[in-house]
Amino acid sequence: MDLKKKIRNVSDFPKPGILFRDITPILKDPKAFSYVAEKFAEIFPKKSFDMVAGIESRGFIFGAALAAKTGKGFIIIRKQGKLPGETIAKKYDIEYGSATMEIQKDAVRKGDRVLIIDDLLATGGTAQAAAHLIEKLGGKVVGMGFVIELAMLKGMKKLSKYNAKTLVRYT
Amino acid sequence: MDLKKKIRNVSDFPKPGILFRDITPILKDPKAFSYVAEKFAEIFPKKSFDMVAGIESRGFIFGAALAAKTGKGFIIIRKQGKLPGETIAKKYDIEYGSATMEIQKDAVRKGDRVLIIDDLLATGGTAQAAAHLIEKLGGKVVGMGFVIELAMLKGMKKLSKYNAKTLVRYT
Repeated sequence: MDLKKKIRNVSDFPKPGILFRDITPILKDPKAFSYVAEKFAEIFPKKSFDMVAGIESRGFIFGAALAAKTGKGFIIIRKQGKLPGETIAKKYDIEYGSATMEIQKDAVRKGDRVLIIDDLLATGGTAQAAAHLIEKLGGKVVGMGFVIELAMLKGMKKLSKYNAKTLVRYT
Repeated sequence: MDLKKKIRNVSDFPKPGILFRDITPILKDPKAFSYVAEKFAEIFPKKSFDMVAGIESRGFIFGAALAAKTGKGFIIIRKQGKLPGETIAKKYDIEYGSATMEIQKDAVRKGDRVLIIDDLLATGGTAQAAAHLIEKLGGKVVGMGFVIELAMLKGMKKLSKYNAKTLVRYT
């Protein structure tokens, strides 16, 4: 399937000058939505990971679909202040300023092999912060799957040790 | 499965006086996470709906899992300002003040039978707003599934015409 045909380009969103890659046409099409989870399951064999971690909030959609298809548990990594109970946080740089991701302290068991899923790989900062959080709790990040890669932002370089894979690449 | 045992009670979150029902232990447990999607699929037969709509952001998790399990497409209903392209919005009352949900104009085809999924039914305001958005676009809301119902807030009453079902009830 040519997944790129199912991605819509929206100019000037969320702000002027940004070309937004909209994945909602993938979600809406049962075949395309299934294809993404199947493709991830093919790239990352079921036996190679114990848990799927989804990054808020589009990573929740593709991550939960993959977890459901492969019968795995699901971990959520959220923006600051949204998770109840004891959490740890990781601050990271974004285009202007910084952002913080959080995970619950008991989300990962020591030795868990975790596959991180998100919709989009840009600079890689968010995924790297997510990986740090999982490692801090004793988990092992065995892979990262993204639907879209914005290759000009060189996120792959930052994530070189994490077995990161992308389905659709924009250069 | 006694799903209630997999829900953690967190006091004073997100603010003092609130007892938060935390569903992350369900997500983490592959059996419990699978059970939720299977239960929804049992309550709402596959042939009775065309699309699953998830409400941001925990509704994305359970909704996407159900869509993946049943081979359906997925519609996202988000907080204001987060969806690219043309959208319609619905304002509704919350405890103090109001909130607004949005949907993309082309998210629903006329006649689509849509099943709305969210993690929690409180007053029912969010789900009602989501249903209005789907109906406005020509879709038919054939059901609503929630993991948790806070029965004292009487959300079921507000949603009486929508075939709303809940898995775990707190009185």
